[in-house]
Amino acid sequence: MTTTTIPLFLEDLKPGLKFTSRSYALSTEDIVAFAEQYDPQPFHLSEEGGRNSLFKGLAASGWHTAAVAMRLLTESVPIAGGLIGAGLEKLSWFQPVRPNDSLYVETEVLSVRESKSKPYQGLARMKQTAYNQRHEAVLEFTSTIVVPKGP
Amino acid sequence: MTTTTIPLFLEDLKPGLKFTSRSYALSTEDIVAFAEQYDPQPFHLSEEGGRNSLFKGLAASGWHTAAVAMRLLTESVPIAGGLIGAGLEKLSWFQPVRPNDSLYVETEVLSVRESKSKPYQGLARMKQTAYNQRHEAVLEFTSTIVVPKGP
Repeated sequence: MTTTTIPLFLEDLKPGLKFTSRSYALSTEDIVAFAEQYDPQPFHLSEEGGRNSLFKGLAASGWHTAAVAMRLLTESVPIAGGLIGAGLEKLSWFQPVRPNDSLYVETEVLSVRESKSKPYQGLARMKQTAYNQRHEAVLEFTSTIVVPKGP
Repeated sequence: MTTTTIPLFLEDLKPGLKFTSRSYALSTEDIVAFAEQYDPQPFHLSEEGGRNSLFKGLAASGWHTAAVAMRLLTESVPIAGGLIGAGLEKLSWFQPVRPNDSLYVETEVLSVRESKSKPYQGLARMKQTAYNQRHEAVLEFTSTIVVPKGP
């Protein structure tokens, strides 16, 4: 049996390693509060405002979904030094997130490599997928995270 | 002289068309409030917590920067039907956003095409870049937005 202590260092990460978060429910109030501050478009602010849009009703801002996914990642991917990325290769929103949807995130390590310039750290490429309570993918992005080597 | 009424329809969008937003200042309180809810890592929660991190101090969550950019886009890119995207090709965070940084966003239309399956709409590919008050790029992403044709 292999035991690994937390937090995880570069040596602990292997392609295929997966992490799964808890579930996080979004209320109507959560969706509207985020939208009022960061994405005040009618289809993110009320059911009525969304009725004649592509969404056919109230839908969470895609950036709200992404922020919730980040919250779940901070709780479920215990990498030493935290989750710091320089960017995303690609981000897809597959379908709307509705009031009372409950999201969880699965993370899969795709590849791991040492840094050429900084011998004390490396880079892990990871795919993150957020699912709703029906296990339908709602969001996916691929990121590369800086990971320190172990002591 | 060409005049264009707002909102803009597919026919109004041409490659090279640019939009610039107002500026949006981020306070320490804003940065910490977003982080507490969506990205509670030490370097997003306090100056002390960031001191020994890659950020060397307090930095806004990259998702907060993206949310602020979205807010500025809703105000500066007046497309009919609103800004609804299916995803991003790429997103890059170039450098940290610090307390009292003031951000603005420039949008450039890269290409425009009609939808093959839906004759009443098309797709506009756009590059969005957020800059700080020193005109340094802090965030960039390329998105494709659904745009209705004019009446």
